[in-house]
Amino acid sequence: MSSRTVIRGGLVITASDEIHADVLVEDGRIAALAATGTPAAGAFTAERVIDASGKYVIPGGVDGHTHMEMPFGGTYASDTFETGTRAAAWGGTTTIVDFAVQSVGHSLREGLDAWHAKAEGNCAIDYGFHMIVSDVNQETLKEMDLLVEEGVTSFKQFMAYPGVFYSDDGQILRAMQRAAGNGGLIMMHAENGIAIDVLVEQALARGETDPRYHGEVRKALLEAEATHRAIRLAQVAGAPLYVVHVSAAEAVAELTRARDDGLNVFGETCPQYLFLSTDNLAEPDFEGAKYVCSTPLRPREHQAVLWRGLRTNDLQVVSTDHCPFCFTGQKELGRGDFSKIPNGMPGVENRMDLLHQAVVDGHITRRRWIEIACATPARMFGLYPKKGTIAPGADADVVVYDPDAEQVISAATHHMNVDYSAYEGRRVTGRVETVLSRGEPVITEREYTGRAGHGVYTPRSTCQYLA
Amino acid sequence: MSSRTVIRGGLVITASDEIHADVLVEDGRIAALAATGTPAAGAFTAERVIDASGKYVIPGGVDGHTHMEMPFGGTYASDTFETGTRAAAWGGTTTIVDFAVQSVGHSLREGLDAWHAKAEGNCAIDYGFHMIVSDVNQETLKEMDLLVEEGVTSFKQFMAYPGVFYSDDGQILRAMQRAAGNGGLIMMHAENGIAIDVLVEQALARGETDPRYHGEVRKALLEAEATHRAIRLAQVAGAPLYVVHVSAAEAVAELTRARDDGLNVFGETCPQYLFLSTDNLAEPDFEGAKYVCSTPLRPREHQAVLWRGLRTNDLQVVSTDHCPFCFTGQKELGRGDFSKIPNGMPGVENRMDLLHQAVVDGHITRRRWIEIACATPARMFGLYPKKGTIAPGADADVVVYDPDAEQVISAATHHMNVDYSAYEGRRVTGRVETVLSRGEPVITEREYTGRAGHGVYTPRSTCQYLA
Amino acid sequence: MSSRTVIRGGLVITASDEIHADVLVEDGRIAALAATGTPAAGAFTAERVIDASGKYVIPGGVDGHTHMEMPFGGTYASDTFETGTRAAAWGGTTTIVDFAVQSVGHSLREGLDAWHAKAEGNCAIDYGFHMIVSDVNQETLKEMDLLVEEGVTSFKQFMAYPGVFYSDDGQILRAMQRAAGNGGLIMMHAENGIAIDVLVEQALARGETDPRYHGEVRKALLEAEATHRAIRLAQVAGAPLYVVHVSAAEAVAELTRARDDGLNVFGETCPQYLFLSTDNLAEPDFEGAKYVCSTPLRPREHQAVLWRGLRTNDLQVVSTDHCPFCFTGQKELGRGDFSKIPNGMPGVENRMDLLHQAVVDGHITRRRWIEIACATPARMFGLYPKKGTIAPGADADVVVYDPDAEQVISAATHHMNVDYSAYEGRRVTGRVETVLSRGEPVITEREYTGRAGHGVYTPRSTCQYLA
Amino acid sequence: MSSRTVIRGGLVITASDEIHADVLVEDGRIAALAATGTPAAGAFTAERVIDASGKYVIPGGVDGHTHMEMPFGGTYASDTFETGTRAAAWGGTTTIVDFAVQSVGHSLREGLDAWHAKAEGNCAIDYGFHMIVSDVNQETLKEMDLLVEEGVTSFKQFMAYPGVFYSDDGQILRAMQRAAGNGGLIMMHAENGIAIDVLVEQALARGETDPRYHGEVRKALLEAEATHRAIRLAQVAGAPLYVVHVSAAEAVAELTRARDDGLNVFGETCPQYLFLSTDNLAEPDFEGAKYVCSTPLRPREHQAVLWRGLRTNDLQVVSTDHCPFCFTGQKELGRGDFSKIPNGMPGVENRMDLLHQAVVDGHITRRRWIEIACATPARMFGLYPKKGTIAPGADADVVVYDPDAEQVISAATHHMNVDYSAYEGRRVTGRVETVLSRGEPVITEREYTGRAGHGVYTPRSTCQYLA
Repeated sequence: MSSRTVIRGGLVITASDEIHADVLVEDGRIAALAATGTPAAGAFTAERVIDASGKYVIPGGVDGHTHMEMPFGGTYASDTFETGTRAAAWGGTTTIVDFAVQSVGHSLREGLDAWHAKAEGNCAIDYGFHMIVSDVNQETLKEMDLLVEEGVTSFKQFMAYPGVFYSDDGQILRAMQRAAGNGGLIMMHAENGIAIDVLVEQALARGETDPRYHGEVRKALLEAEATHRAIRLAQVAGAPLYVVHVSAAEAVAELTRARDDGLNVFGETCPQYLFLSTDNLAEPDFEGAKYVCSTPLRPREHQAVLWRGLRTNDLQVVSTDHCPFCFTGQKELGRGDFSKIPNGMPGVENRMDLLHQAVVDGHITRRRWIEIACATPARMFGLYPKKGTIAPGADADVVVYDPDAEQVISAATHHMNVDYSAYEGRRVTGRVETVLSRGEPVITEREYTGRAGHGVYTPRSTCQYLA
Repeated sequence: MSSRTVIRGGLVITASDEIHADVLVEDGRIAALAATGTPAAGAFTAERVIDASGKYVIPGGVDGHTHMEMPFGGTYASDTFETGTRAAAWGGTTTIVDFAVQSVGHSLREGLDAWHAKAEGNCAIDYGFHMIVSDVNQETLKEMDLLVEEGVTSFKQFMAYPGVFYSDDGQILRAMQRAAGNGGLIMMHAENGIAIDVLVEQALARGETDPRYHGEVRKALLEAEATHRAIRLAQVAGAPLYVVHVSAAEAVAELTRARDDGLNVFGETCPQYLFLSTDNLAEPDFEGAKYVCSTPLRPREHQAVLWRGLRTNDLQVVSTDHCPFCFTGQKELGRGDFSKIPNGMPGVENRMDLLHQAVVDGHITRRRWIEIACATPARMFGLYPKKGTIAPGADADVVVYDPDAEQVISAATHHMNVDYSAYEGRRVTGRVETVLSRGEPVITEREYTGRAGHGVYTPRSTCQYLA
Repeated sequence: MSSRTVIRGGLVITASDEIHADVLVEDGRIAALAATGTPAAGAFTAERVIDASGKYVIPGGVDGHTHMEMPFGGTYASDTFETGTRAAAWGGTTTIVDFAVQSVGHSLREGLDAWHAKAEGNCAIDYGFHMIVSDVNQETLKEMDLLVEEGVTSFKQFMAYPGVFYSDDGQILRAMQRAAGNGGLIMMHAENGIAIDVLVEQALARGETDPRYHGEVRKALLEAEATHRAIRLAQVAGAPLYVVHVSAAEAVAELTRARDDGLNVFGETCPQYLFLSTDNLAEPDFEGAKYVCSTPLRPREHQAVLWRGLRTNDLQVVSTDHCPFCFTGQKELGRGDFSKIPNGMPGVENRMDLLHQAVVDGHITRRRWIEIACATPARMFGLYPKKGTIAPGADADVVVYDPDAEQVISAATHHMNVDYSAYEGRRVTGRVETVLSRGEPVITEREYTGRAGHGVYTPRSTCQYLA
Repeated sequence: MSSRTVIRGGLVITASDEIHADVLVEDGRIAALAATGTPAAGAFTAERVIDASGKYVIPGGVDGHTHMEMPFGGTYASDTFETGTRAAAWGGTTTIVDFAVQSVGHSLREGLDAWHAKAEGNCAIDYGFHMIVSDVNQETLKEMDLLVEEGVTSFKQFMAYPGVFYSDDGQILRAMQRAAGNGGLIMMHAENGIAIDVLVEQALARGETDPRYHGEVRKALLEAEATHRAIRLAQVAGAPLYVVHVSAAEAVAELTRARDDGLNVFGETCPQYLFLSTDNLAEPDFEGAKYVCSTPLRPREHQAVLWRGLRTNDLQVVSTDHCPFCFTGQKELGRGDFSKIPNGMPGVENRMDLLHQAVVDGHITRRRWIEIACATPARMFGLYPKKGTIAPGADADVVVYDPDAEQVISAATHHMNVDYSAYEGRRVTGRVETVLSRGEPVITEREYTGRAGHGVYTPRSTCQYLA
């Protein structure tokens, strides 16, 4: 028997259109859209009717960069797939692509299996996996082909974190060459970790141990350097490149230059770089530790460059790099030594709201909001046409969004499993009202109506964003 | 009584989506889309059913740059609004924005009225007007405000053609300032006409009279110069800028630089610059005259830069600058003096096909095809949400396009009122099958079923493309 | 009978060398240099011995941009050739190249003759002439050839001052083409005067009449625009280009881009742009009028870009654009209307000292000081090997400079015929002690020992600086 | 008793001046210059008179990059300090700065001592040492300070040759930081050797073993990448940077960008990149091996960019990277495996002539010839005022150069100890006639009159070229 829902009277917003339409959901998919008030819309009948008058009806968010239960620095990111995906749903995100990790000396398969085990049966929303490649060798390269075939079509490498995730330029080049052949997309953490580690050692030797020194040693120039290097290696390999969590104006300049040359080079930034700054890292009483992530927060003046990049498509995606660690017990590991603070921040719940605030503030248009938060990540990571749009045939991952509601972000009210909010006290305009995941209500008028296990693993095709 | 059409089984392509959907048309508008084969689609009933299986269903093209019956060099463009719009329909274009002309010493209103008189009752498809401003003065500036209010929201100025359409930098600055205030968009013919006229005089004095000298005197550097100047003036005025018929790589570089700085600067190119070159201008026996237009065709190597610009959105729109003059009797006016060859080429019928060929050739994606030919011009010129997309509520300007059919472009078969084709003998893959304009069939399975007067004047809102 | 002078014990500084040497002057020329203390130096005998121990021995300054007795805005620059060249000598400058002016409707010859008449017999130091071309026509173009042959090898055009000195782009292109043929150098006042005049009119209409609005209407973007335009026109003409009085960072960027492309494009700046700013233009009680010149002073942050340009040779020359108008009676003409303030500032006496201060401050090296103030202007304007260096065979235009003396710049002590100093009260380190012009002492240990008429007209060869 | 020489009647050319002067040499130094024909010149008396009428009198060349007896790939460069410096003298070069090598696990001191032992008593001309730093550690860093104090003021690091000379980015950063403190200059071999080694392995695996593949795997993009990386690391360290043997247009672009930003970044190129190309590497019968050096020769179109860089000072120095290996027995080690061909080419004897040919061909001016080949390397490496100019007090390293003589370069006539010439059969205009080293004739009218041991070690001050 068919299960049908109709969402009536909202403004449906996609990456390219804004229309007053009723949306018919059948069997977990968008079945039809009809102009509100027309006979065609009137003909829609359904068991469940959602009134979206005065609201936006938008695709569920696609967060292409999360780290649930991620091991780092001797501890684990505090959100499990269960808590993290639930929080994502609260924030209007209906798909995450998380990172499975290959450990050095182990196969990609082992890592991927481990991450499947963590996620399966626990997620409130759909999920996929990227693969972190820590150990490039002949076996790994062959495994990359297999993973692409089974829907893990993107591979992250690190130019930072020597001795942990770090790949040298030869390993990067080999992986890129392989990706050029099998259609995989290389995602790059672009910071010169070798040079940074020298600066870390020197800073600590000078007694510079506070969180703010985290921002000082991980210099914008060293993010730009690595970004440029990754671009050149990708050119040599003939492969596309996706640079994660771009934060420095100088790195944006490198991406811009590459795109002006017509290269398939893409950049992602995150809300923390758009809304926070080194001012936060400098907060007293070790509060700055809350904002320790890599790439680090930058001085405030970098924000305008990031917004410019988002507007003119030199940056294509806003993900969260959600990787929360509690202040108490986790961030505190780095008291007296900033290099021991676990790197990462919570955010999976806040992304859609913060970006809507950017619409309100005039940084981006409504359609661009949907594009950078839903449509482009879906295409970039091969989830289209299931995810990222509201169109007949797509998965019914739909958010009813109230553009006029006001809320105050706070750890007291958020749903992420972490004891602080990076945006504590920030007032934003706009709020998720109702969320459907494949037609099922996960959030219903600000109540959680989902369940762990509803979300399923979603294999991905190769990148659909290449020019 | 409701008139309903359903288009079944095609691949609906918009600027952002590609979906298998049935499209329901009611009363001239898109009423609904439903995933093909679903109960929702099955519920669509209509008087007329169009089978689009194996075909694309795309928005009708929006050609933002045509010159029907344009007076130039003592003659008139050979297509009337009747013949020109019919040819446009044959080529899958359902909206044109033509240019009304202010003559020096006359008001904008007079020019606009004259153009309304030419078009009214004659058009097969919908049309709007830009206004060519030839005489900036206090009255003209006030008239600009009025025109914006009544739907003529864009104003073209010329840095070329001194003594005819030419505006000096002060007139340009004043018009831009006015546009910054009233929301109008300044469109610029960016060539340094003052310098070019010196080179023309010198070339003729040297006996260089053949058509190919038209391309030599109108130097790429002088297009780039004017492009840069227009950008700077727009910056001073705080106004957006749309540069028409960009042909030179050096001009694209100026636009790229401006966009890298985050300016609201836009560029249009045309099929002739993407597919033809100075090789054509150099054709013997005065045949080169067929390809005389301004900006001129460039050496072949400029094409790659234009395609790059289209891919990374440093160029946003492909229009035709359709301005046909017959070889016999019109182009021939310039035998012995290239400067007397009427400037302009036919193309309104060929644009959609040539750009589909670019999809086939791998220059652009299918969605980008629709974006640069339909969606962006609609937004750029304030025609959205009526035009440029297939979405509930939009005008039912729809093309059923056969992506596999082959055709050979030729004056023997085209419908433009001009005695040659600039693409004579060129084989392209893809062909328009059926065209609806506001739900009415204008082309029906390769037969013309439209009528002069079906097309109506369409007032436009201000630019919807600003970042 | 031979007249001989020997300058002993100083540090001789040229554009490329710094040596401890005695300098022998014979018959107005540098006859020989010998390492101080060697037998060769000991063998130098002379009627006059100047002790330069602890001092610098440098080439006399070459100021390539002065306007003595210049008519402007209904008045005349307050320095005559007599007072102006005397002041130049006091400041260590031994050659000026002033601007003869063609009036519209008159020949170049008439203008040149008039300027010869003003200067002849009145100058304390040697002088040459550039020619301001206000009226490009066939006769003017022919005259350019003749002037080059007789030593007037550079021609200034204005993109500013419509109705006065202004040339349109066609006139500029023609003059550049002629210069490309005859070896002349086009010097450009690069500001978009047509656009600026619109902004002037609008500012005055808003009641913005104070001197500081002079700086606001003459926008940096419009200097950059004109600079770019001049470069492109020079490219089309195949001619070198020298842009005078560059003040805006954005204009430096255009020059930098052109030089990165290998073009023979050169830039001059002036001390006022390096040491003063819009802060001065905003001084109350109409004091800002003292700083009104065009291009205008810029916000302070432009200075670093100018210094960078001077260091890496994107700017090659520092001249003064000396064009003094007394505050009382002249600058006051513009009370209540900034556009009526005569444009120009005094400075011919201060250039060498201010640039030495830049050495002290670390902006440039000692050799670069001599290069930008002496050697390059001499080569740029065809005065080498007579001027600009200390080398056997060169004119004995030599300055003994005390690098340690301190002085305070003041109208109370300066020798220019103007009632204020733009640098009033500024303390600088370094001072001219003695100045020889062709071997004759013009300044002798801080006393004026020269005479009007010593200085002679110096015909120039074509530019010796082309790459 | 004083030993005196006078060189009469030549055109003395320095980096900034061209004068007709007689040059008096006393006790190995330039004592005086006097304008030819003046009483002052007539007063010069000397034991030895050299007639330079119709000739150039130029500073002896300073070759800042040679590798005499360099161990590489299991063999040694074929020129000893004796044969190499003699050949240098034949070619008009009077100073070399060679590279002492630190072996991994050994101290800088050990390497320096070994190189002193090779050179001492064997050289025909003066010499200094740079230090190749292969093993950055705390001891090495301290030794850098000591070496700077004793006149070894520049340190070369390699981003290429992993496992041999290679330094990682941390080692580079540390050395740069040390140099920023002690005034040392870091010289960088900028190629991404890690990536290149991957490409080498892959090429060999594909059976691509001929010399031309050497040029294909060492990609221009990977030179540009490393150049950019070195610049960024130098920025972080606050140190100047000198990039050796720049060959790729893309690398010049990086240097240009850095200099446009005002950084103290310098670039050297070599005659082989200016006059040879990948065409040579592709010569059949393994002849291409003669041209194997790193960075490799590039396609011909890179040459214009290098010349442009030399003209506008984005490249400052032309050295030879003289490192000869005989074709027979040495280059042949790489038959069947291009990676085993010893990297290096002969050239120390040809540099001054080839660059004079560039003057004849119009690429550079005469003064620029002296600047890039004599004056700037002397300043760059702290040899001024002893070397690099003709001025009182400087060492009398003087070349009498016949600008009109023609010669054909050939291994049959050259004096380098290597069995081929890279420029075999090339006709050049200009020839060294006579060479003085500290006043002693080393070459006398095309006869060798020098002796091993005349040349002495010349300690150097720190870089004198910083802006």
